[in-house]
Amino acid sequence: MTKKEAAEAVRAAKARLGVTWDQIAEAVGRPPAWTVSALLGEHPMSAAQAEAAASLLDLKDDVQQALRLQPTRGALETVVPADPTIYRFYEVLQVYGPTIKELIHEEFGDGIMSAVNFRLDVKRVPDPAGDRVVVTLDGKFLPYQW
Amino acid sequence: MTKKEAAEAVRAAKARLGVTWDQIAEAVGRPPAWTVSALLGEHPMSAAQAEAAASLLDLKDDVQQALRLQPTRGALETVVPADPTIYRFYEVLQVYGPTIKELIHEEFGDGIMSAVNFRLDVKRVPDPAGDRVVVTLDGKFLPYQW
Amino acid sequence: MTKKEAAEAVRAAKARLGVTWDQIAEAVGRPPAWTVSALLGEHPMSAAQAEAAASLLDLKDDVQQALRLQPTRGALETVVPADPTIYRFYEVLQVYGPTIKELIHEEFGDGIMSAVNFRLDVKRVPDPAGDRVVVTLDGKFLPYQW
Amino acid sequence: MTKKEAAEAVRAAKARLGVTWDQIAEAVGRPPAWTVSALLGEHPMSAAQAEAAASLLDLKDDVQQALRLQPTRGALETVVPADPTIYRFYEVLQVYGPTIKELIHEEFGDGIMSAVNFRLDVKRVPDPAGDRVVVTLDGKFLPYQW
Amino acid sequence: MTKKEAAEAVRAAKARLGVTWDQIAEAVGRPPAWTVSALLGEHPMSAAQAEAAASLLDLKDDVQQALRLQPTRGALETVVPADPTIYRFYEVLQVYGPTIKELIHEEFGDGIMSAVNFRLDVKRVPDPAGDRVVVTLDGKFLPYQW
Amino acid sequence: MTKKEAAEAVRAAKARLGVTWDQIAEAVGRPPAWTVSALLGEHPMSAAQAEAAASLLDLKDDVQQALRLQPTRGALETVVPADPTIYRFYEVLQVYGPTIKELIHEEFGDGIMSAVNFRLDVKRVPDPAGDRVVVTLDGKFLPYQW
Amino acid sequence: MTKKEAAEAVRAAKARLGVTWDQIAEAVGRPPAWTVSALLGEHPMSAAQAEAAASLLDLKDDVQQALRLQPTRGALETVVPADPTIYRFYEVLQVYGPTIKELIHEEFGDGIMSAVNFRLDVKRVPDPAGDRVVVTLDGKFLPYQW
Amino acid sequence: MTKKEAAEAVRAAKARLGVTWDQIAEAVGRPPAWTVSALLGEHPMSAAQAEAAASLLDLKDDVQQALRLQPTRGALETVVPADPTIYRFYEVLQVYGPTIKELIHEEFGDGIMSAVNFRLDVKRVPDPAGDRVVVTLDGKFLPYQW
Amino acid sequence: MTKKEAAEAVRAAKARLGVTWDQIAEAVGRPPAWTVSALLGEHPMSAAQAEAAASLLDLKDDVQQALRLQPTRGALETVVPADPTIYRFYEVLQVYGPTIKELIHEEFGDGIMSAVNFRLDVKRVPDPAGDRVVVTLDGKFLPYQW
Amino acid sequence: MTKKEAAEAVRAAKARLGVTWDQIAEAVGRPPAWTVSALLGEHPMSAAQAEAAASLLDLKDDVQQALRLQPTRGALETVVPADPTIYRFYEVLQVYGPTIKELIHEEFGDGIMSAVNFRLDVKRVPDPAGDRVVVTLDGKFLPYQW
Repeated sequence: MTKKEAAEAVRAAKARLGVTWDQIAEAVGRPPAWTVSALLGEHPMSAAQAEAAASLLDLKDDVQQALRLQPTRGALETVVPADPTIYRFYEVLQVYGPTIKELIHEEFGDGIMSAVNFRLDVKRVPDPAGDRVVVTLDGKFLPYQW
Repeated sequence: MTKKEAAEAVRAAKARLGVTWDQIAEAVGRPPAWTVSALLGEHPMSAAQAEAAASLLDLKDDVQQALRLQPTRGALETVVPADPTIYRFYEVLQVYGPTIKELIHEEFGDGIMSAVNFRLDVKRVPDPAGDRVVVTLDGKFLPYQW
Repeated sequence: MTKKEAAEAVRAAKARLGVTWDQIAEAVGRPPAWTVSALLGEHPMSAAQAEAAASLLDLKDDVQQALRLQPTRGALETVVPADPTIYRFYEVLQVYGPTIKELIHEEFGDGIMSAVNFRLDVKRVPDPAGDRVVVTLDGKFLPYQW
Repeated sequence: MTKKEAAEAVRAAKARLGVTWDQIAEAVGRPPAWTVSALLGEHPMSAAQAEAAASLLDLKDDVQQALRLQPTRGALETVVPADPTIYRFYEVLQVYGPTIKELIHEEFGDGIMSAVNFRLDVKRVPDPAGDRVVVTLDGKFLPYQW
Repeated sequence: MTKKEAAEAVRAAKARLGVTWDQIAEAVGRPPAWTVSALLGEHPMSAAQAEAAASLLDLKDDVQQALRLQPTRGALETVVPADPTIYRFYEVLQVYGPTIKELIHEEFGDGIMSAVNFRLDVKRVPDPAGDRVVVTLDGKFLPYQW
Repeated sequence: MTKKEAAEAVRAAKARLGVTWDQIAEAVGRPPAWTVSALLGEHPMSAAQAEAAASLLDLKDDVQQALRLQPTRGALETVVPADPTIYRFYEVLQVYGPTIKELIHEEFGDGIMSAVNFRLDVKRVPDPAGDRVVVTLDGKFLPYQW
Repeated sequence: MTKKEAAEAVRAAKARLGVTWDQIAEAVGRPPAWTVSALLGEHPMSAAQAEAAASLLDLKDDVQQALRLQPTRGALETVVPADPTIYRFYEVLQVYGPTIKELIHEEFGDGIMSAVNFRLDVKRVPDPAGDRVVVTLDGKFLPYQW
Repeated sequence: MTKKEAAEAVRAAKARLGVTWDQIAEAVGRPPAWTVSALLGEHPMSAAQAEAAASLLDLKDDVQQALRLQPTRGALETVVPADPTIYRFYEVLQVYGPTIKELIHEEFGDGIMSAVNFRLDVKRVPDPAGDRVVVTLDGKFLPYQW
Repeated sequence: MTKKEAAEAVRAAKARLGVTWDQIAEAVGRPPAWTVSALLGEHPMSAAQAEAAASLLDLKDDVQQALRLQPTRGALETVVPADPTIYRFYEVLQVYGPTIKELIHEEFGDGIMSAVNFRLDVKRVPDPAGDRVVVTLDGKFLPYQW
Repeated sequence: MTKKEAAEAVRAAKARLGVTWDQIAEAVGRPPAWTVSALLGEHPMSAAQAEAAASLLDLKDDVQQALRLQPTRGALETVVPADPTIYRFYEVLQVYGPTIKELIHEEFGDGIMSAVNFRLDVKRVPDPAGDRVVVTLDGKFLPYQW
């Protein structure tokens, strides 16, 4: 069983049982964004994490084993994502990519935000003009070092 | 003069005069990320904003006028950005795109984070294990509505 | 069952039973364009909508459940669509894209037509020189707002 | 002088003189969307139309002549447009392309909406929940005929 | 059964029975080029046409029904076709595309050759220096009309 | 001077002098389609042909010399042509490419229509339902021969 | 059975029986390069050739029939081939393509080497500094002829 | 001066003076195919070779110096070459690439034909049915060796 | 069984049995990097090597036979690899490709590092600031030789 | 002056003066690979480094200033590099990318080799069978850490 098939099994079980990602994350004992990524096949789970997810979602052993495998990462089906919810983040890159680069260099000097020593979360921030989606990307600064 | 040529003039003046984006933003009276984007040609400036920037950076009239034009947005030179500082954000999309989508749908239902009614900022968060780049993407939730 | 497989089941049932999209839309209680999109997998249906469609089209339970899932949107098989009926709309973009942009900015200022707070319809308008296809794209204006 | 250079001259003159597309269209005696397209280089103008535009915008003879040339059409700089205002229309195709195809075939049979015997307009429709951009695409139906 | 699977069934039956496209076209009562296109899935057949083809080729009911479906057209597997027999026509476009455009505009003015109100045929023309393939593309002229 | 610059000079002279491709072809003594292709840079001209064209169009010596150079052929700016008048011929390939292939193989056996030992012409054929553009592609059949 | 599946069956049988392409070519009575191409699905075989191959390789009837079908040619899985043994020939094109073009034009005038009236072979040429692979491409010259 | 500009200077001088590649190769003292490649910018020339070419073609010093520079190789303007004379060699790869691979492996084992320890030539071979272009690709076999 | 399916069988067995690549390499008697590449389908194994691997991993005969087949190499699923661990090496090419080229030419003259007469290894180098991944690419220099 | 123009100025000066990268690196006081990358525009130089390079190479002030600018990195002109010396490293990725990934994960666990906290060098290693190019990629291991 591939990690992609395992992800399908997870989605199916989640829909059938009506549990939320938050509930699964709590069972697994990890933040929601990490948990979703791992169950969709973008991170390997430890034996205990996979077992906790399998137990809540009533997943078979081969799913559980697939969740523990080292992934080959990369979840976009096309180079430019077509789904509008995901596309907006690509659009942010198109419009603000060089801006983010300038601000990182001004504040930190030459380097990057790590996407590996990294965490993100997605929050609702109430706003009278319409609630807001706030996505926080939080990665260690890595200076160019020879 | 195109907005791209104006952006080059801005970069050249900024380097020559040794001012920072923060100083320019303060002169313009707008948040730094917006100001950088506008000066790089991704947002139109008002007459007053363009004048404030021109005054600080000693820019000619045609630059000032170009800064006020409505842009055709899109700053990436290639569909997948090659610059490592920008690429890491594309990588975040490759690894976490579907995760962000799941969490938005779980919290808000079917819809998107607006990239138009939107603001972002880039901050340094001190950390003993290495300071962190924290990029906050903050857009209004837009539900699918017929 | 994926939403794509569900869409195939819908098409097959529609052909077998000889019902029209209009009849299905009436049964579902939603406008035709929305209904077609939802049944082709581009929108999630509510339980009641899926049940109404399933009842008219004699669809099995797993189809009905697939129709309720949150979609990953994006229906084009290639970046430039090959089918002539769809291609003409891409051609409209090639010829008139910047024109539409100019007219939106002249009338509304800097911003976009939402494709999320959005509806469309397709109508026949009789014309002695040959009836016309009139497609109305109707989306909320979203101004660039920081 | 190419039609692209002529379009740049038109944009520059329009900005310098502060006239609107509507005013130019009135001077040219053609609908606004057609006029914008023609001045951006997507349609050839008649001598009288080019002269009317040149007179209002104070354009030189070579611009006027370029406006009369037969264009090689196609205004998008990339296959998938990056500018958000234009991209939303590509997104409409991604989400609703097959829906529009289904509805054309159901109403008219096998055929297409012409993009040549075609007109469009862009309107503001007031709405208490936010005014709407309404783009009407209106093309002759062309049945597949051998 | 998809139209593509139906096309495979048609090819298999044709090879097994040793009938020619000309014989099938005669049975269907349509020109050969139309008939081949329809059986390969690029045009919908009427009930009578599908039945005539099915009867000659001994095709099952589901093939017959697939032949009647509205196609999503587009037969090339890659954007630039690799098969040499088909590639030569792409090469004609590379070498003569702008020439054809010039000659259409000189003779007809601004407009296109319809590919929908269109027919083609393929003929052998004997020639002592080697017989020639003559492909006639015959489409209605459509002037740009607003 | 490149052949592309020469083609621009030809177009400019043709527009300035108001001569037609037919008139130029007559002066050059070659069929119109060949003449247009050659002047647009897709065929080399003989000294006499280049001189005849230069004389009629009042072209300078360097243009004349460029017209005689061996071209690197290929006139499309993008892999899929965007101009609607040219695109329709790409669409013909998308819809009818495999059909043409089948008919060539049925009539001639395994082989291709040459695009090198090849001529084409573009004609107007009057039709009460709208005059027709008839493009004849006429190439020598080349059988696969080892 | 498709020609691709037939090619897989050929490869499997060849491996199982330990015969060489040379032995198969001898049985088929055709040069090795032609024989390999035909068995990999790039040329149609006559009944006798397919039978000879089938007899040597112990292939079933459906394989034999697939070998006789007219192919849609094109064996590369990606536009730029990834396999190093094949890539080197693409590299030859990148480095020497225009050189070959110049030398053909100098020797023969304007025209091409046919890839249809064409044969190739692959030989070992002993060399004390390391034996050499010599690939001879041998095609009829086809002059551009209108 | 870049090597590309030097190549343009070489082509222009060659056309002006009416010398052939063969004559230039003789002057340079290298085989024609190598000489053409080097002058088109795909190989670096020694001082003596560049001087010999410059002397025959009456080239300036900066051209001569550019001819001696180490090139960044790669002469195709598009990934799939559009020029028919060059395309036929890409087509050979599409049709015979895997065949050549099989024959190399059968004769030599696992490895490649070097495109670096490599020479090619282009010859005319008289043939009553039409003279033939014979291109010989001759590279050292390199076995996969760890 | 294809080499890709064999690679899946190898991965599954390795996970099930909990053996390491190092242990497998030792059993096969080849360096780890070669062994992994071969088992993932990028090199052919000898009968003895395949048997050794099969014996340790308890693989069936058809897997063993697939491991001995000549591969068509090329392991990346997309032209630009999406997996971050692999992407970093593509990034090295983007940032340092021309640097490596300059240094090879300065030290060796015109030529390449062979990727065929080639070996690599991956090592951990302890470092108080964080251990380092050291990948050594070691290929024979091949000078351009005609 | 852009960093690309500065790189051209560096190359020209280096050729004119006949200095080596090693000599420049020594003058700059940095390792050769870093120095080449910086001078080709992939790293920013300090004032002192730029001055040292400028002094040795007799570069003007604007070159010196351009060398100090923060680069937008990415040196490949095409997604797949065409130059053979660079391509071989892309080929290494095609053949060994997943192997390197496996070995990193086996030794270090889930994570990447940094391409930012990174150094490389290129060495000649004498070998009786032909000297070898040894490229060492040396980057800090970065574990996936939330």
